[in-house]
Amino acid sequence: MNKSPFNDLYNEFEIEMHRVDSLINQRMFSKQTPVIYDLTNHLINAGGKRLRPLLTLASANMCGYKGHYHIHLAAVVEFIHTATLLHDDVIDESLQRRGKPTANLLWDNKTSVLVGDYLFSRAFQLMVETGSLKVLNSLSNASAKISESEVMQMSLARNLQATPNQYLQVIRGKTATLFASACEVGGLITNAEIQYVNALRQYGEALGVSFQMVDDFLDYAGSKSDLGKNIGDDFREKKITLPIIKSLESKNPVNSAFWKRTIGLGEQKEGDFEIAQNILKSDGSLEKTRLEALKWATEAKSKLKSLPKCKINSMLFDLASFVVSRVC
Amino acid sequence: MNKSPFNDLYNEFEIEMHRVDSLINQRMFSKQTPVIYDLTNHLINAGGKRLRPLLTLASANMCGYKGHYHIHLAAVVEFIHTATLLHDDVIDESLQRRGKPTANLLWDNKTSVLVGDYLFSRAFQLMVETGSLKVLNSLSNASAKISESEVMQMSLARNLQATPNQYLQVIRGKTATLFASACEVGGLITNAEIQYVNALRQYGEALGVSFQMVDDFLDYAGSKSDLGKNIGDDFREKKITLPIIKSLESKNPVNSAFWKRTIGLGEQKEGDFEIAQNILKSDGSLEKTRLEALKWATEAKSKLKSLPKCKINSMLFDLASFVVSRVC
Repeated sequence: MNKSPFNDLYNEFEIEMHRVDSLINQRMFSKQTPVIYDLTNHLINAGGKRLRPLLTLASANMCGYKGHYHIHLAAVVEFIHTATLLHDDVIDESLQRRGKPTANLLWDNKTSVLVGDYLFSRAFQLMVETGSLKVLNSLSNASAKISESEVMQMSLARNLQATPNQYLQVIRGKTATLFASACEVGGLITNAEIQYVNALRQYGEALGVSFQMVDDFLDYAGSKSDLGKNIGDDFREKKITLPIIKSLESKNPVNSAFWKRTIGLGEQKEGDFEIAQNILKSDGSLEKTRLEALKWATEAKSKLKSLPKCKINSMLFDLASFVVSRVC
Repeated sequence: MNKSPFNDLYNEFEIEMHRVDSLINQRMFSKQTPVIYDLTNHLINAGGKRLRPLLTLASANMCGYKGHYHIHLAAVVEFIHTATLLHDDVIDESLQRRGKPTANLLWDNKTSVLVGDYLFSRAFQLMVETGSLKVLNSLSNASAKISESEVMQMSLARNLQATPNQYLQVIRGKTATLFASACEVGGLITNAEIQYVNALRQYGEALGVSFQMVDDFLDYAGSKSDLGKNIGDDFREKKITLPIIKSLESKNPVNSAFWKRTIGLGEQKEGDFEIAQNILKSDGSLEKTRLEALKWATEAKSKLKSLPKCKINSMLFDLASFVVSRVC
């Protein structure tokens, strides 16, 4: 593995991550219905970053957790994440995810929906096994928030009046909430002091916002080979993301007319995505988006001050910088 | 309301059912995303029978429950049921459900999947509020079973080798498990004796099997106006249900060839559904299915003997007969 704050963190928890992987494999197995394993295996083992479970392990470690349930919780956040990816595949009709064809093209919509439901239920079973109602509370709230925000995102598609606040509300819900919960449950399972639990949640939340902003940045700025997924998905789906909001704020009449046609009215033709990329680069919208992501990464780092000073704390600090600098 | 064991039970719990409805309405409301309310309202208030929440209220009552959480749990089972209907709509492409166009035709697939996820999460939030890990255990197991069995059902479609046991496994999972859990949690929330909890679960399970067998019977035997849903859905979707399994067991070569073409190979033409209805009626398969459903209803009734003798017990006894005699 290349040297990076993410890989450093992964290496630090390599043994635990193997236990997480083995629990995931064990729980996604269904004797009755092998298709569940095949589909989930395809998705979970397709080189996903496992960022969320790592956050859970790191948070529990920082709070001094001595038990075994951090492994359960790390598997839970990965299951919830994978379930949302599966349901997102049904939805987005994007062609690639994590460099492989989406599940949806190999299997049908039906199966993706049901296997997503299965993983979601499996996640709740694992949470119940921990016996912690606080954990269940955090993650059931996160799950409700995720789907609510995804519906909100859909209802904002094509809407050029969408505000930066609405955008923030969507990405907080669909991405940052699970990052926040992934960190928070590491503290909750340790019965850590409330200020630690809060700081962990806030770190995760800010990191998640930053992460999603960079994702939205990369969907215009990245290249196909970097991302291992199609760039331009947001454009094709007429999603209103921060780069477009920033561009509209500049009030350049030619650019505004372009966004009105391609996003507001959804009339897109060959070559439009390249024009979109050029506009966002030349009018500074991509740079503004990157700076906004950087601001949230700084916010995330500031929350680490309330947590125990230790090696893992520094690694989470570096991770926040890495999330903004990443190219995939 | 017409006189029926179902309506008797509804009338008995009318006040509580109003509290359930009002909790449902309150929890499905989302300020951010009105579409969630619109869609769920359409589905939940379209005249659904509310059989599952009634089972929860009746079970809690029979065990002498004195608290308020039976209302929560009744709402939970209706939410889980509605979430599965929403995801089933995405899947089945059936045109009508409960006499109104399916959500799926009024809204798109995306929204149905996400709103289903939202309701499922809401259900878990409500369970967490009860503070009962036993309840969470029962219902998270039920949820996993439901999706697992629906995947199994899909993988058995068109498979003329499907056995009665495989059919039973599917309907136990997709239908009877939630009936069983709906009853069981009424006992669990009361901290009732284990033999009561078990008897409740077994009653619910057998009732659910009977209920689904009658549903599968009615999909061939019912008329459109009775059901308020399309009959013939199972045939069009090439599902292997008990009537077809019974017909195949008769080994009539002409009929077997018909099933091989229409279900096994999926080659259906105008008029085939009417032929299917005639075959199942004349070769006794529908009658055999009805008798099998009756057997399970009798099994359900037998479980009530282990529960306190009271008015509600008799009502649940009559309900089991009603489930088999119903025409919709």
